[in-house]
Amino acid sequence: MSSPAPPVVLTRASVEAAHALIKPHIHDTPVLTNTTLTRLASTRQSPEALQGTQWAGQEPAKPSVKLFFKCENLQRIGAFKVRGAFHAVMRLVEQEGLEQVQTRGVVTHSSGTPGNHAQALALAAKTFSIPAHIVMPSISTPSKIAGTRAQNAEILFSGSTSTEREAVVADVITHTGAALVPPYDHPHIILGQGTMALEIQDQVHKLLGSGEKLDAVIAPCGGGGMLSGIAVALHGTGVRVFGAEPSFQGSDDARRGVEAGQRVTSVKTLTIADGLRTPLGHHTWNIISNKDYVQALYAVTEQNIKDAMKLVLERMKCFVEPSAVVGLATILYNEDFRNMVQREAGHKTWNIAVVLSGGNTTIEAITNIFAEVPQDKAERHEGVLGADGTRVAENVAG
Amino acid sequence: MSSPAPPVVLTRASVEAAHALIKPHIHDTPVLTNTTLTRLASTRQSPEALQGTQWAGQEPAKPSVKLFFKCENLQRIGAFKVRGAFHAVMRLVEQEGLEQVQTRGVVTHSSGTPGNHAQALALAAKTFSIPAHIVMPSISTPSKIAGTRAQNAEILFSGSTSTEREAVVADVITHTGAALVPPYDHPHIILGQGTMALEIQDQVHKLLGSGEKLDAVIAPCGGGGMLSGIAVALHGTGVRVFGAEPSFQGSDDARRGVEAGQRVTSVKTLTIADGLRTPLGHHTWNIISNKDYVQALYAVTEQNIKDAMKLVLERMKCFVEPSAVVGLATILYNEDFRNMVQREAGHKTWNIAVVLSGGNTTIEAITNIFAEVPQDKAERHEGVLGADGTRVAENVAG
Repeated sequence: MSSPAPPVVLTRASVEAAHALIKPHIHDTPVLTNTTLTRLASTRQSPEALQGTQWAGQEPAKPSVKLFFKCENLQRIGAFKVRGAFHAVMRLVEQEGLEQVQTRGVVTHSSGTPGNHAQALALAAKTFSIPAHIVMPSISTPSKIAGTRAQNAEILFSGSTSTEREAVVADVITHTGAALVPPYDHPHIILGQGTMALEIQDQVHKLLGSGEKLDAVIAPCGGGGMLSGIAVALHGTGVRVFGAEPSFQGSDDARRGVEAGQRVTSVKTLTIADGLRTPLGHHTWNIISNKDYVQALYAVTEQNIKDAMKLVLERMKCFVEPSAVVGLATILYNEDFRNMVQREAGHKTWNIAVVLSGGNTTIEAITNIFAEVPQDKAERHEGVLGADGTRVAENVAG
Repeated sequence: MSSPAPPVVLTRASVEAAHALIKPHIHDTPVLTNTTLTRLASTRQSPEALQGTQWAGQEPAKPSVKLFFKCENLQRIGAFKVRGAFHAVMRLVEQEGLEQVQTRGVVTHSSGTPGNHAQALALAAKTFSIPAHIVMPSISTPSKIAGTRAQNAEILFSGSTSTEREAVVADVITHTGAALVPPYDHPHIILGQGTMALEIQDQVHKLLGSGEKLDAVIAPCGGGGMLSGIAVALHGTGVRVFGAEPSFQGSDDARRGVEAGQRVTSVKTLTIADGLRTPLGHHTWNIISNKDYVQALYAVTEQNIKDAMKLVLERMKCFVEPSAVVGLATILYNEDFRNMVQREAGHKTWNIAVVLSGGNTTIEAITNIFAEVPQDKAERHEGVLGADGTRVAENVAG
């Protein structure tokens, strides 16, 4: 049907080429600073604040940092995912021709609660008049269904497990010939997400005086598309890249996998960071498990995530989803990270860029997250209900 | 003690001078656009959406507008109030000399729930090492007290009525000679708040193509300091200025006063827009009641405010307090306003700047606002408790 795609090289130059391609279709989202959060991050945490965290009772660390927040919650469709989706669609068009792709259409499945990739692909497809088929669990929230439908996508419902989802996707491909655009484990998706790193470098350097430089970037890690893209973009620049994950119910599959030297291929978690319930894929594991690309991974508790989210909302005035704040939570509450910065920075202040990855949540979901969990609803944390009260599918790498 | 202050002229030139003076101390807050909200504002509302609004059953209006949001929620201390506070303090220093003001100190009272002026004055005073005394009701929320205390201000508690507050302020002045910096009804405060209009014009013109211009600005109106400042700044420029108020329990004192030709001097309301519970003052009334300055005032219901707030949080990803969205609520749900735009704009699209005035609220307060009110807590809407669950003082012009 079409010639085989040339192998994709994962280099900074490829990220730059991706950026040039997608730039007209994405927002150059702002980088914000915040005096209060920079001060909090540079202050010794109280032993009380560190209960239940990585803290082992020694003197709390006192790193000196300056924080720069990349606001991808202000990106189109409210999350960074449009970067990868536009890049994948535009490369497909480049390779096969627009008419051919318009005939085939594209398809993806949406497992996570926010459904950011589904909305992103639907938008990218609509932009080029390409039919988009989105497979989502029939138990998806009405707002997610409405958001995807608003982009003219055809929605197909499936059962909640990855097996059921993939059966429907296979069915769509058989009947329409649609091209699968996976949510994270694809070189073009990785390169697309990496484009934000180029903007971050440029924006932080403009905000810093001359002679100062960006020292590190920390980003959330779910399937790893964004983290590996950033790592590819910054490889060889001297800017360190760190990943952050929730620890709840083993959500920190990337950290555990790297520690054990073997990829964790299945995760079943109901962390409130519902965009990060997925394990690493094949491509993203290869990059993230390489210390030349990602220096280290850190995990934070559900309470850390709630505390960081409250600060971002109430102090920074940015509306973000829980997944967006795991990087900040790590900087504030993970003593392993804080000790590492204190040790490596020495007498200098580290300039750290923190990716706020998305803002696709609702007042209702936030209310549920911050409500005290009454006993009769405690099963929410035991594997039945998601943070928004809906039943959640298991997430298994496919 | 000091020579009498020269009379302050309320002109655009004075606003420009104010801007030059305070610029190093304030943020040039971003102006954001939003496709979804611009589309919603330009769409005919459904009769269902207009139930309980200004709609009288005729065909809903379909104005064509493009919206530009001035994000003063990202201003220092989270609200526009720092503009006026810095201006008033810096003019005082200019007139009396820094040493003299440092000896006297400054004082204000904080009645509104957010306490934005109190925090703003405390920050401005701290910047110049001037002692600040803040009088606030002893029933103030802990977050408000902590926020003000963080700026090194001395906090004095009073009873909840304006009479009790003013007695404590008078006492402070007697004992310390502190200069009173009122929250809105003072020429220097008005000129300071007006500085945002200069930024809005500049930012919107940069975002618009050449040949296009800003048509109107809509801003919330409580005590009227911001609205009258904007009106002074834009007087003679051809840019129309509109004010927006809540209608609940007669909060729309400015609109009612202008209609009756006489200032309403006392308001007792528990609108969720808790920054707008104050009536106009002497100076602000003189400007706002003059149609050459403020073309018209509009009022919106509590439900309109909640609906607009949900859109700003969930769709724009901006964390704002309820008072901040009354301008957008007017554009979306006030059919008098929408019909006026449709009539006056003709076949053109109006470019409207909407001031999002502040973001000083909490997840807890938002949860309370959006919770269904159970019967046993219904007195919250009957004059006993504020939106944050605390007892609220009456607000009477002093």
